[in-house]
Amino acid sequence: MASIAVCPGSFDPVTYGHLDIIKRGANVFEKVYVCVLNNSSKKPLFTVEERCELLRKVTGNLPNVYIESFQGLLVDYARSKNANAILRGLRAVSDFEYEMQITSVNRVLDENIETFFMMTNNQYSFLSSSIVKEVAKYGGKVSELVPYEVEEALKKKYEHMYKK
Amino acid sequence: MASIAVCPGSFDPVTYGHLDIIKRGANVFEKVYVCVLNNSSKKPLFTVEERCELLRKVTGNLPNVYIESFQGLLVDYARSKNANAILRGLRAVSDFEYEMQITSVNRVLDENIETFFMMTNNQYSFLSSSIVKEVAKYGGKVSELVPYEVEEALKKKYEHMYKK
Amino acid sequence: MASIAVCPGSFDPVTYGHLDIIKRGANVFEKVYVCVLNNSSKKPLFTVEERCELLRKVTGNLPNVYIESFQGLLVDYARSKNANAILRGLRAVSDFEYEMQITSVNRVLDENIETFFMMTNNQYSFLSSSIVKEVAKYGGKVSELVPYEVEEALKKKYEHMYKK
Amino acid sequence: MASIAVCPGSFDPVTYGHLDIIKRGANVFEKVYVCVLNNSSKKPLFTVEERCELLRKVTGNLPNVYIESFQGLLVDYARSKNANAILRGLRAVSDFEYEMQITSVNRVLDENIETFFMMTNNQYSFLSSSIVKEVAKYGGKVSELVPYEVEEALKKKYEHMYKK
Amino acid sequence: MASIAVCPGSFDPVTYGHLDIIKRGANVFEKVYVCVLNNSSKKPLFTVEERCELLRKVTGNLPNVYIESFQGLLVDYARSKNANAILRGLRAVSDFEYEMQITSVNRVLDENIETFFMMTNNQYSFLSSSIVKEVAKYGGKVSELVPYEVEEALKKKYEHMYKK
Amino acid sequence: MASIAVCPGSFDPVTYGHLDIIKRGANVFEKVYVCVLNNSSKKPLFTVEERCELLRKVTGNLPNVYIESFQGLLVDYARSKNANAILRGLRAVSDFEYEMQITSVNRVLDENIETFFMMTNNQYSFLSSSIVKEVAKYGGKVSELVPYEVEEALKKKYEHMYKK
Repeated sequence: MASIAVCPGSFDPVTYGHLDIIKRGANVFEKVYVCVLNNSSKKPLFTVEERCELLRKVTGNLPNVYIESFQGLLVDYARSKNANAILRGLRAVSDFEYEMQITSVNRVLDENIETFFMMTNNQYSFLSSSIVKEVAKYGGKVSELVPYEVEEALKKKYEHMYKK
Repeated sequence: MASIAVCPGSFDPVTYGHLDIIKRGANVFEKVYVCVLNNSSKKPLFTVEERCELLRKVTGNLPNVYIESFQGLLVDYARSKNANAILRGLRAVSDFEYEMQITSVNRVLDENIETFFMMTNNQYSFLSSSIVKEVAKYGGKVSELVPYEVEEALKKKYEHMYKK
Repeated sequence: MASIAVCPGSFDPVTYGHLDIIKRGANVFEKVYVCVLNNSSKKPLFTVEERCELLRKVTGNLPNVYIESFQGLLVDYARSKNANAILRGLRAVSDFEYEMQITSVNRVLDENIETFFMMTNNQYSFLSSSIVKEVAKYGGKVSELVPYEVEEALKKKYEHMYKK
Repeated sequence: MASIAVCPGSFDPVTYGHLDIIKRGANVFEKVYVCVLNNSSKKPLFTVEERCELLRKVTGNLPNVYIESFQGLLVDYARSKNANAILRGLRAVSDFEYEMQITSVNRVLDENIETFFMMTNNQYSFLSSSIVKEVAKYGGKVSELVPYEVEEALKKKYEHMYKK
Repeated sequence: MASIAVCPGSFDPVTYGHLDIIKRGANVFEKVYVCVLNNSSKKPLFTVEERCELLRKVTGNLPNVYIESFQGLLVDYARSKNANAILRGLRAVSDFEYEMQITSVNRVLDENIETFFMMTNNQYSFLSSSIVKEVAKYGGKVSELVPYEVEEALKKKYEHMYKK
Repeated sequence: MASIAVCPGSFDPVTYGHLDIIKRGANVFEKVYVCVLNNSSKKPLFTVEERCELLRKVTGNLPNVYIESFQGLLVDYARSKNANAILRGLRAVSDFEYEMQITSVNRVLDENIETFFMMTNNQYSFLSSSIVKEVAKYGGKVSELVPYEVEEALKKKYEHMYKK
């Protein structure tokens, strides 16, 4: 049996916390499809293309990790990849309840796709894309929170915003 | 003593989870007023009238359940109905804390109206109107999540949105 | 329909937090049976008889409140009283999860008995019998935590223990 | 060593819950800088100037409390005041997780500024600026929730909004 | 790469909730070693041998599931089986925090063994061995909570206890 | 004003998590009294004297930290030291609720002693004395969890136990 996992998220932008989960998943599953979901009504900082591009740069050394974007139901995407697993990181209690909700609905939609949760490394348990953007927006140092490529992209994005 | 309960919510739209609480309440209280609150600044999918209409359809078989809408403080509505109880469903920890806050303020506003919580059936413990809309928006099957009338209404609403 | 509620607990000993819930329940239900459960393997401070006696003293002014003890399944006790409701106080998240568990099992055992939760008054949201005993054991002032009769009983109990 | 604390928030508007924490902090620290953060993208009810003004009125009797506003990273503000502590109130589990996240990031940004948490008085554990505004908007009584000056300011604000 | 998972627990006795996780795991992993941990200082109802025997009976139809007992550190057991995964069920917030603690320590002890969490089916989210024993002890019906073999074993155990 | 803090616990034995909080406290308060509470009915692994001795060894480099033991109410101890603060570490949601309870009762007992909470470093957020003992009992490596002196003491303790 080929074990294929889908790892969904907004990744706006990818942090060291996301990367930790992707790497751990790639150690166990044969293929990991990282899927940038394009559903949210929230206005993102980075376009879907920019988010995919950053993910490709920081996972370049992981041969069994693939980056794609998708708009629609996650279970439809998973089926299109013949995936039998959805992979999610868990950080905190609030994550946990939201994830239970999503997992339960996904089971109703397709009971053959199983969701697996992994604990984010303690070192990154507080990290979120939102907090990284908040720090970067006011010129704070984000080099311990995101890879170099993301740090540079954040810098350009906010310089651009303030010049306008 | 007549026991009259008010069961408030946004019901955008009503789910099997809401219906479970309304039915359980109607088994214990003499009258249950289901009250569609019209306060939120969030843009709803269904109008207040549509939400009331769907509630009326799916509670048609419950003779002691009444559907109304209201804009204002819940305790004012409850008083206008001579209700001595507010009835709420509890699903998860996040619900719990929000409900404690609302209950505490309602006690400050009127200490004669008591709030009672009921556990949603485990089968529906993950259900929310938001997740139903997310699934319906991308054409997922919602027939295990909402009554038939709501399923149809969601279908029409999203067809309409995509045609525009 | 007569509305009869059962309010179970260890009550070792009864606190102002318990009393708050019993009073609120007695305002809404026609009869409230306060039931001292005698199941626990934990060694209690007060005997079942002493706990019932203290409850009787502090609820003496509530004519529709009855104090009894019981060993066995709560739903069996509730049925024996023709009760259609179980009444429980909720203080914190940890309470909430335990109560969900008990409620779910009770529903499996008898789906005609509904569990209602009430929020403990904020003033008593931190109170538990354990913490009262811990304070009393070291001579701390418990008069804001328990009724006078319980305060006296605690004093005697610990004097007696230290004399031994 | 001078102990200087920074107490940050939106204070839109200040409630008795905020005031409880500010007073407790002022009892222990030599100086407490209450800092109205001007970062949020959410549209506030009161301008930063109005929020500062209300804070000044209700803390007028506390000689070691100073009210300022700031846009940027809290650690930058704290350094500019030579503060060695950030002071935060904790009410509920949801507060707790958010605060852990912020504290962890602030430690990455400046490990010499320590965050201290204080429990809000049980009496105010349910209070938030949002719920105060919701009650005031529909003419509910807020005199047990906020100081007199804030009550008056809310009244004017909502009268003004409804006249428009 | 062979994917081998270890699924540890006390299983005193196995419930439908445990069985749900074991089955889901067996659908994804090549081998699942169900490991009855023999560490606890708590006095169990069933001996380790009885617990293994019941597990063997109820997983007899799952060819890639193996039942064993172990006393010691879980990571030592996992290594002895060449397992690269620990499999755990998650039901509630309290589970979640305990599991995070165990997972973090196991990572310190052996970073090559990854822990995966699966959500228990909503239907069994309230189930625990303790609550099953509490119900069985007082003659309650447990046939919806545990497999037939376990129901019988519980019956014998408690009959035996009461005869003594 | 001299700022004197009391930092209470069982410390059976002290871990790097405890040490993190003690050090952070010693950076802000003039004196920190680490108080080994001798109240619990649980049978400890180390005697009060051994626990104090280990604490003294690992805090030897902190001149404003004092190690003592106490049996009784924490507020009585705090008063005897002229302390105006109780210092506690927070790791998780379950900690949080227990601490809220203790803090509320301590406020009832003495409202002049304020409780301050500090977040444990993420690196140690999973650590507890219990888990350290569990690992050490089965010969696991605890050198990343506790100071060298504690590691040695655990080794001796368990050797001794197994020889018996």
